[in-house]
Amino acid sequence: MRIAVLAGGVGAARFLQGLRAAEPDAEITVIGNTGDDITLFGLHVSPDLDTVMYTLGGGINAEQGWGRSDETFTVLAELTEYGTGPGWFGLGDRDLATHIVRSKLLAEGRPLSEITAMLCDRWRPGVRLLPMTDDRVQTEVTIEADGAERTVHFQEWWVRLHAAVPARRITPAGAESARPAPGVLEAIAAADFVLLPPSNPVVSIGVILAVPGIAEAVSAKAVVGVSPIIGGAPVRGMADACLAAIGVPTTATAVAAHYGPGLLDGWLVDTQDKQAVDAPELAGIEVRARPLYMSTPALAADIAAAAVDLARQVSR
Amino acid sequence: MRIAVLAGGVGAARFLQGLRAAEPDAEITVIGNTGDDITLFGLHVSPDLDTVMYTLGGGINAEQGWGRSDETFTVLAELTEYGTGPGWFGLGDRDLATHIVRSKLLAEGRPLSEITAMLCDRWRPGVRLLPMTDDRVQTEVTIEADGAERTVHFQEWWVRLHAAVPARRITPAGAESARPAPGVLEAIAAADFVLLPPSNPVVSIGVILAVPGIAEAVSAKAVVGVSPIIGGAPVRGMADACLAAIGVPTTATAVAAHYGPGLLDGWLVDTQDKQAVDAPELAGIEVRARPLYMSTPALAADIAAAAVDLARQVSR
Repeated sequence: MRIAVLAGGVGAARFLQGLRAAEPDAEITVIGNTGDDITLFGLHVSPDLDTVMYTLGGGINAEQGWGRSDETFTVLAELTEYGTGPGWFGLGDRDLATHIVRSKLLAEGRPLSEITAMLCDRWRPGVRLLPMTDDRVQTEVTIEADGAERTVHFQEWWVRLHAAVPARRITPAGAESARPAPGVLEAIAAADFVLLPPSNPVVSIGVILAVPGIAEAVSAKAVVGVSPIIGGAPVRGMADACLAAIGVPTTATAVAAHYGPGLLDGWLVDTQDKQAVDAPELAGIEVRARPLYMSTPALAADIAAAAVDLARQVSR
Repeated sequence: MRIAVLAGGVGAARFLQGLRAAEPDAEITVIGNTGDDITLFGLHVSPDLDTVMYTLGGGINAEQGWGRSDETFTVLAELTEYGTGPGWFGLGDRDLATHIVRSKLLAEGRPLSEITAMLCDRWRPGVRLLPMTDDRVQTEVTIEADGAERTVHFQEWWVRLHAAVPARRITPAGAESARPAPGVLEAIAAADFVLLPPSNPVVSIGVILAVPGIAEAVSAKAVVGVSPIIGGAPVRGMADACLAAIGVPTTATAVAAHYGPGLLDGWLVDTQDKQAVDAPELAGIEVRARPLYMSTPALAADIAAAAVDLARQVSR
């Protein structure tokens, strides 16, 4: 069985951990969001790729869901002594090594997809991890500041401003001229079906789908998504702030309707949102309700198994 | 009093510590060797500038003479896990922060002299620290390997090969087209005299003097050197291997003769080398013998005071 998965960070990583456990023999290709990538201290940081890699490779700080386990912050303390910003983004020593290696190889002209494969040589995540593109796409958020519009990097809005300042627009800058990374379209085409983990529909899945060619390739396959909204609230993170920016209500139904039946064939919602099963706006999408909290690896595996099950059904 | 000092790493840093103590009111400009600079893990490392900065700023690992105190090696261990080389150069976490800041600013197009000043804003070394040049000069060592000549970076020869493979040539590549960093020639011209600490005559002082304009500016001043050779052996490091490459015997007399009376006005040698005082090949150079081991900061201050004293005498 071949499965392609579009992935953001923490939610996707936990779902993928479950998927690998539920389908140990499946060939899983993960297409990771790079719109959150940011240059910090001159180093290229790929938060979503790293979260997936560390989680599946056993190096994650499981409690916080991102960053490395047994982390220390010696370098960051020194950078702060030099007055080098930004102070709002915490990079641990272990994590930093990943960014140093990535930045060195990027500076040598290697594409991000090749570098990601090299990093995975160490982590052996048990999936093929591809960045959505080797080109630079940067998710930008337009906010209002002092009566005027100001555009900031997604990470600045998300981490520094805690997404508390309303976003007027969220733009995957550069996406229109980006090309899918080598292997992305092939993996989607070769997949039995495509899964959308409970990642942020706007800044994770939405940004991946904004790379020309990916949405078309995905739409041609059976696609099953797992709702990131449970009982009218994001399971994790501040997806509501992102959805508000694109005028989508924070409900499992609205997110599925936003993806649309042209993309989505199946949709898993939480039992709290079971009204979505019969929602008229989801006509053409097979909706199933079941518990969706991935509080343990075993529960994540159950949810992944249910997604695979639904994908098989809608593939028929 | 204004003093200009040409400086390598450990020996220069200890001498400068002594000089600062001996002459607390002097305006000291240090012109640091950058021929040892190397790109490691994609980061720009300036070993000599950092050794001077850390030593005078109180951040040095005093026991080993280079690197930071209270150092940890978490990032390096991770880089090793990624199989990223070179394994022969140990960079601590605290030290790494300096290289990250420097590399970030270099990538933004700032000159090394400006960056060095910014780093010194933190360390407040009590001297003005200037790189010899903002241009790239790389000290290369030509060795014989398997019957053929091979050229390696100085650090590879020095650190990886422990200078155990004989050097056929030592070349400051790029020096011929390098320009002195802003302030270098001005500081030398404005100085009451120039001091040469007991740094490596070939790869430290020699490389600085290879930047066009610096040797001329230095020669125009009263210049006093402190011998890095005591009793026919380098006080520290493997200066003998460097001297052999240029055909200079490892003696206090030969090193002074190599600099020549055109450059050197005064020369401090150790009491073990007091025959240099009357050496005919040092005619025209005022030679004085005294204990030269800088085993404590107080002894370093005594030696620096003696150098200043001699400089005043030869300036008359």
